[in-house]
Amino acid sequence: MRDQIRIFTGTGNPALAKAICDHLKIPVSKADISRFSNENIFVQVRENVRERDVFVVQPLSSPVSENLLELLIMLDALRSASARRITAVIPYYSYARSDKKDMPRISIAGRLIADLLVTAGANRILTMTLHSEQVQGFFRCQADHLAATPILCDYFGSLDLKNCVALAGDAGSARRAGPYATRLNIPLAFVDKRRVSDEKVEIRAIVGEVEGKTILYFDDEIARATSLLKTVELLRDFGVGDIYVGVTHGIFTGDAIERIEDSPIRQVVVTDTVPMPPRKRCDKVVQLSVAPLFAEAIRRIHTGESVSEIFE
Amino acid sequence: MRDQIRIFTGTGNPALAKAICDHLKIPVSKADISRFSNENIFVQVRENVRERDVFVVQPLSSPVSENLLELLIMLDALRSASARRITAVIPYYSYARSDKKDMPRISIAGRLIADLLVTAGANRILTMTLHSEQVQGFFRCQADHLAATPILCDYFGSLDLKNCVALAGDAGSARRAGPYATRLNIPLAFVDKRRVSDEKVEIRAIVGEVEGKTILYFDDEIARATSLLKTVELLRDFGVGDIYVGVTHGIFTGDAIERIEDSPIRQVVVTDTVPMPPRKRCDKVVQLSVAPLFAEAIRRIHTGESVSEIFE
Amino acid sequence: MRDQIRIFTGTGNPALAKAICDHLKIPVSKADISRFSNENIFVQVRENVRERDVFVVQPLSSPVSENLLELLIMLDALRSASARRITAVIPYYSYARSDKKDMPRISIAGRLIADLLVTAGANRILTMTLHSEQVQGFFRCQADHLAATPILCDYFGSLDLKNCVALAGDAGSARRAGPYATRLNIPLAFVDKRRVSDEKVEIRAIVGEVEGKTILYFDDEIARATSLLKTVELLRDFGVGDIYVGVTHGIFTGDAIERIEDSPIRQVVVTDTVPMPPRKRCDKVVQLSVAPLFAEAIRRIHTGESVSEIFE
Amino acid sequence: MRDQIRIFTGTGNPALAKAICDHLKIPVSKADISRFSNENIFVQVRENVRERDVFVVQPLSSPVSENLLELLIMLDALRSASARRITAVIPYYSYARSDKKDMPRISIAGRLIADLLVTAGANRILTMTLHSEQVQGFFRCQADHLAATPILCDYFGSLDLKNCVALAGDAGSARRAGPYATRLNIPLAFVDKRRVSDEKVEIRAIVGEVEGKTILYFDDEIARATSLLKTVELLRDFGVGDIYVGVTHGIFTGDAIERIEDSPIRQVVVTDTVPMPPRKRCDKVVQLSVAPLFAEAIRRIHTGESVSEIFE
Amino acid sequence: MRDQIRIFTGTGNPALAKAICDHLKIPVSKADISRFSNENIFVQVRENVRERDVFVVQPLSSPVSENLLELLIMLDALRSASARRITAVIPYYSYARSDKKDMPRISIAGRLIADLLVTAGANRILTMTLHSEQVQGFFRCQADHLAATPILCDYFGSLDLKNCVALAGDAGSARRAGPYATRLNIPLAFVDKRRVSDEKVEIRAIVGEVEGKTILYFDDEIARATSLLKTVELLRDFGVGDIYVGVTHGIFTGDAIERIEDSPIRQVVVTDTVPMPPRKRCDKVVQLSVAPLFAEAIRRIHTGESVSEIFE
Amino acid sequence: MRDQIRIFTGTGNPALAKAICDHLKIPVSKADISRFSNENIFVQVRENVRERDVFVVQPLSSPVSENLLELLIMLDALRSASARRITAVIPYYSYARSDKKDMPRISIAGRLIADLLVTAGANRILTMTLHSEQVQGFFRCQADHLAATPILCDYFGSLDLKNCVALAGDAGSARRAGPYATRLNIPLAFVDKRRVSDEKVEIRAIVGEVEGKTILYFDDEIARATSLLKTVELLRDFGVGDIYVGVTHGIFTGDAIERIEDSPIRQVVVTDTVPMPPRKRCDKVVQLSVAPLFAEAIRRIHTGESVSEIFE
Repeated sequence: MRDQIRIFTGTGNPALAKAICDHLKIPVSKADISRFSNENIFVQVRENVRERDVFVVQPLSSPVSENLLELLIMLDALRSASARRITAVIPYYSYARSDKKDMPRISIAGRLIADLLVTAGANRILTMTLHSEQVQGFFRCQADHLAATPILCDYFGSLDLKNCVALAGDAGSARRAGPYATRLNIPLAFVDKRRVSDEKVEIRAIVGEVEGKTILYFDDEIARATSLLKTVELLRDFGVGDIYVGVTHGIFTGDAIERIEDSPIRQVVVTDTVPMPPRKRCDKVVQLSVAPLFAEAIRRIHTGESVSEIFE
Repeated sequence: MRDQIRIFTGTGNPALAKAICDHLKIPVSKADISRFSNENIFVQVRENVRERDVFVVQPLSSPVSENLLELLIMLDALRSASARRITAVIPYYSYARSDKKDMPRISIAGRLIADLLVTAGANRILTMTLHSEQVQGFFRCQADHLAATPILCDYFGSLDLKNCVALAGDAGSARRAGPYATRLNIPLAFVDKRRVSDEKVEIRAIVGEVEGKTILYFDDEIARATSLLKTVELLRDFGVGDIYVGVTHGIFTGDAIERIEDSPIRQVVVTDTVPMPPRKRCDKVVQLSVAPLFAEAIRRIHTGESVSEIFE
Repeated sequence: MRDQIRIFTGTGNPALAKAICDHLKIPVSKADISRFSNENIFVQVRENVRERDVFVVQPLSSPVSENLLELLIMLDALRSASARRITAVIPYYSYARSDKKDMPRISIAGRLIADLLVTAGANRILTMTLHSEQVQGFFRCQADHLAATPILCDYFGSLDLKNCVALAGDAGSARRAGPYATRLNIPLAFVDKRRVSDEKVEIRAIVGEVEGKTILYFDDEIARATSLLKTVELLRDFGVGDIYVGVTHGIFTGDAIERIEDSPIRQVVVTDTVPMPPRKRCDKVVQLSVAPLFAEAIRRIHTGESVSEIFE
Repeated sequence: MRDQIRIFTGTGNPALAKAICDHLKIPVSKADISRFSNENIFVQVRENVRERDVFVVQPLSSPVSENLLELLIMLDALRSASARRITAVIPYYSYARSDKKDMPRISIAGRLIADLLVTAGANRILTMTLHSEQVQGFFRCQADHLAATPILCDYFGSLDLKNCVALAGDAGSARRAGPYATRLNIPLAFVDKRRVSDEKVEIRAIVGEVEGKTILYFDDEIARATSLLKTVELLRDFGVGDIYVGVTHGIFTGDAIERIEDSPIRQVVVTDTVPMPPRKRCDKVVQLSVAPLFAEAIRRIHTGESVSEIFE
Repeated sequence: MRDQIRIFTGTGNPALAKAICDHLKIPVSKADISRFSNENIFVQVRENVRERDVFVVQPLSSPVSENLLELLIMLDALRSASARRITAVIPYYSYARSDKKDMPRISIAGRLIADLLVTAGANRILTMTLHSEQVQGFFRCQADHLAATPILCDYFGSLDLKNCVALAGDAGSARRAGPYATRLNIPLAFVDKRRVSDEKVEIRAIVGEVEGKTILYFDDEIARATSLLKTVELLRDFGVGDIYVGVTHGIFTGDAIERIEDSPIRQVVVTDTVPMPPRKRCDKVVQLSVAPLFAEAIRRIHTGESVSEIFE
Repeated sequence: MRDQIRIFTGTGNPALAKAICDHLKIPVSKADISRFSNENIFVQVRENVRERDVFVVQPLSSPVSENLLELLIMLDALRSASARRITAVIPYYSYARSDKKDMPRISIAGRLIADLLVTAGANRILTMTLHSEQVQGFFRCQADHLAATPILCDYFGSLDLKNCVALAGDAGSARRAGPYATRLNIPLAFVDKRRVSDEKVEIRAIVGEVEGKTILYFDDEIARATSLLKTVELLRDFGVGDIYVGVTHGIFTGDAIERIEDSPIRQVVVTDTVPMPPRKRCDKVVQLSVAPLFAEAIRRIHTGESVSEIFE
């Protein structure tokens, strides 16, 4: 395997790429990435990749547009360097959130970005916890979709919490919280929100039993945490127990970390699909690594073993 | 408009095509559809369609495979007959239900069929109430997605029911019931189901308040009605009031009609996206027509007016 | 080879798939094929096919539309399961008969279906006795086209018939009867038919010597057998000897078998490209197996040996 | 129409292009075609064609490769000049003869050239008398296929010949002679030829009645006329009457004209799909013009009228 | 025209878009562009564009990646909103500088971005002063390429300078300076630079006569101005007269403006293809507007008039 | 390697193909290439190429259109014969000269031909000394671009010439002469030409020092040599020393050889990318072989080694 596999990283999450390579016991392959004075991105692959099985690790994390363009140009450079197969490893596919046309004359950008990746040279996609499962259908190339559910559930299982309920932030995300509830064998509840105008969303009720329960709030990502914190505020009136939050992608923009620290939330559990800079680290946030999972998936893609069996 | 627009129908729902044409005050255009002795489908367009703006009405209703193939061959015949633009009008897109890869090594057939339609010559798609909104992203061509929500809600509004709750069959369909709840301004509840094995799904609880309430059960389609009737059975233990059902696509396979008649359901409201043969008609089932909506959408597509404004 | 090759079958002709696998000494690979209550076809591949060389056996036999859709969905499922190469093995490609635009505004459906197969994921096609050789040009992917001529001629050779003439059903199929006449070294004749109206075809004459001869009538397929039986009737006036029929694809729709039994035809020789249900079996019909030929072609495609050499 | 339609010509048959334009009462549009010193073809369109409906007349006549390349480069120049729609008018599509894979490892070049035309920018094809009708299925774009049958039959009808038989050069071309026989209401016969080795074809017999008859030999094209003259030689032994030949494309390569003049053939009737240089003209060859037919087809394509109605 | 044309602008250069629209006497069409908290770009077109002829003005100016992504998403939104034709108006196409593979394993990003634009929905491109003319061949769609030469030359002509020479920064850009030299009818010179290592470029000589001459230095763009200022420094040893600089795209990154002000350069003339923020404005820099040129090109594209005639 | 690699040749330069194969110690693979009587090109591959790595050597040398068509048909035949990968080896890509749209309404034919090659089945391109480096961006498939610079420079180095200057025929080709000047470490000069009308180009001056120097004139190709000989004539007034010419592609059309012989040019050095027929050979022309370079590149493409390293 060492002879044929090559793993590159963009500047999006080099630590994760390094961790994946460490698990596979291979070095991260070399590529120069820089900007010309007119801001054009320049990529030069520094190793021969002819006939090699190549992977590029790059989440669509901040700065998203830069990271996406960088990925597209890396894919093209690798293709022109005659790589045999190129897999874009995108641990966080931010545009999965733009997955439907719920307003007139908008772009289903999750689909557009998927098409751009193929145009740029991606032969396969390897990603994790898409905002909705349907997004996998947006990829015109072969795609593998990993779930962080086992990692997060194992962690919560290890906490030995009692009397829990899985809470979803709205009706739409109830289906996302479902697999967690099933795996942890706990009941499900959700917040009934209504959009009352273009700007305003009203929380109408919490549907399901939460009183006196330990709340496990599940979602795919936390960015500004506005919606999460509104829900937490609401929960105060319901006499709930401890509040835990489990999400795959911990984006934490603006003052999200500060507001979480100031909130009654006990703990927020995220993974390292996006990098967490030191200034964002805090006692309430636990980061679990997805590197072993990605390493195993890459190994199986390369050797032709089943990827779905990882989750059996 | 009369000069340029041509509306054809497959054998899937000629009554709907006729109703749409009546609203537009144009005749249904002529095409011969037959089978050779080896079952090959044969289509001959019987009118000149060069440079015309052509629409083909064909739901993926029973027999689904036949109707789909017929549609594909009609699209190809129209393309080869030099139509300027061809819109596949698919009031019921059955394969929207195959919208994700929730088991290993399956086809996201909703995506595949979308690709087949484009391959066969569809320049646009006009459809209604897709199982999930993301499916619109599966279409590589331009697509318009109509909602039956206003039609169903207007009807339920006219019944002047009191103390209602919108009920979704499972967590995943909570987001489908949401727009109904919002428009009717009633609370939302859902059935918490868990898949316990490949064959078995267990109903765990009803999440939300239903006791003493008039139940409005919403979904995109009813086929065998198994899931609906299990939910209804469960509701008995909760002391609910009248039970109404509102779905866009009334497929009613097997003995669904008989079992609905024998159930405590008060009324099932569907539309005419799929034809309802006389033997399926019964007092409990009300069928509302979507023909005016499709006619208006076709008119706007043809003249270049906004389709989304229909719903404002 | 055992490690890398996988042969699946749709529901079109599992017996043939089994026979092919038996020749290759490998098991038929597992896949679940079922229908949802709304008639949507569901396929799950039950074995890991990553990086495997995969073949799917499915003739476009009755029910044609079902079998075609099933094949398309299997191809898509195999592609999404990361098969390295997928060959659609279509022993009977019914739509080859729709190979030209001999009426205005019709579909060249043989071309359309070829395009659909590629859209669904077919990397190669392996088929037999296309209605016309030009159909091979309809496939945008690589294709191998097997001939049943040697199998049928060897059989007729073994009968030791005397004073034969190869008869074609019309001028157009004279070129199909040609290779048989050449290989058996017998003269050629054809029926001169004229289309006198949309509905009516008139038999004008038999062109060539048939009096006192053993007739070998050759064609690519028999479905309702109308044309064949009219020709047989006509032959009565010409004082011919025994009448034999050799066709690759024995479709036998309607009461074809009964009418053949009641006719002066001595024997009809077909292959097993399409399954022959027990109720269609009769003493006059001989079925020869193409399984050894398909097995050998599959083996050569897999190992990179010449397929055309089979016929040298 | 004058404002929007533009008809260009390559160097293949400018006289035909001029005749077509004369029928439409428009001038031939201007384009410069030349060769650089390294033989690269250079084309400059000399008129604004933005948003125009453009036609390029160019048969694949001698020199075939030059004419084809010239056509491809003209199509690309017109596309880059922003023409709204470009129709390649190819009265003689020579590569239609390469329509099947009757030997291993050859190109179905009729299909390849069709693909090249689309790659170069052709939005439509307008052609005449393809070697086989299936070739129309090779075009990925819309195509119209004109027949010279009415023109040739009208001419033969005007000769008032008695006791005729339509003769095809081999079994394969029997289907090409068929429409002539039908339209003239005369019997059909064909020459039974057998390929006995790679180099040698043996004439085995004439199938059908020819004795004492006026022979009308029909085919799609005459090039070296070898096959035709061998058949004529054979006919001497059968005591036939006058021999007439009717073909759409009169290529006449080598000493074909001289050998025809020396033969017992009475008359050869061709059209002007390919140009006939003065040195090839002789008393036995009659050339009929297809310009009115192409002009009418172009007019109908432009205005959106039915082309097939020309032949009703 | 007012009815059918729609001009949108991204956030790249709204002032230019406004100026273009003012020339055409139409308003800039409305679109909302914003960022979600995870940095995803969101675009909503706020006007009906069905069947309209749509243009989007967006240079690839700073921030380049953001502006490019924004453009791609706008194109997709407009396509999904059923625009009839979408032209990406890209006054400054920064990636044209990545037009060749002069190092191993790099991307020809100018080609990649061209492909991404087509994937996102661009039907046409309208751009100006590409770094090399060959880049126009990178666009798979129709493209119009405007030149700023007349605007810059007219300006220099108005200055009434004497004894001028056109100077190119290196041998490669000599062909870019050529059209200026020709139009102004002045001699041409260039700087002979040699790359001596990966990091270091050595200026070897000035090829051509510059002593005592007014220098007109021409290039396509100025970013950090390093190369320009080195050349200027070198010119000091040659006893040249005034130094003028003429470039289409004035990017001015880093302290370019300050260093130009401190240099002996008399004047730098640029256009408004990229916006010049107030802090970059200085007495030495003159900005000419390309809005009239783009407005006229857009008008001609819309009405089907020749664009090349603008330059005759 | 012997087992898997297959090198075919068209009729363009069989001697070069043979020389390449000799270097690789493999035979040239067999294919029949002929013309039908209607000039259609016929190609039959005479060896099994299934799953093989196939290369076809064919420069676009005279007759260019014939050679190009021949190449396209060979590519298609090899694809249909199931080759695993097909590399078009085009030592001289004549249409690289048509690389920009410097006049309105012309084709960028270098781009068109690149697209045709991909349509016909080329998976890779291997070429040499493209007229401009940007042309590599025209290829939609992977491409390797070899330089003859080392071969020519080594030769000139071996001549031990003194006091040299590298001369480019015009400003545009200065960038082509640059790499030679750099490698030989000599100064650069160019001829300042101006197009004064459609027909007339005026030589205005020689920019750079040439007096008393040995002139090394570099370009990519010589065809009619008109421009070269005009430059040589001009040089007479400048008192230059010996004149040498180095070009990759020696086309020599018309009386180029005779005029070179009669000129003061000392020597013309070319390579064997295009064949030099005996009648063109003369004492002044030296031909160097590129076969070792192509052989090494083919070997590396096949084994997955870096091609760029050849030039390090």
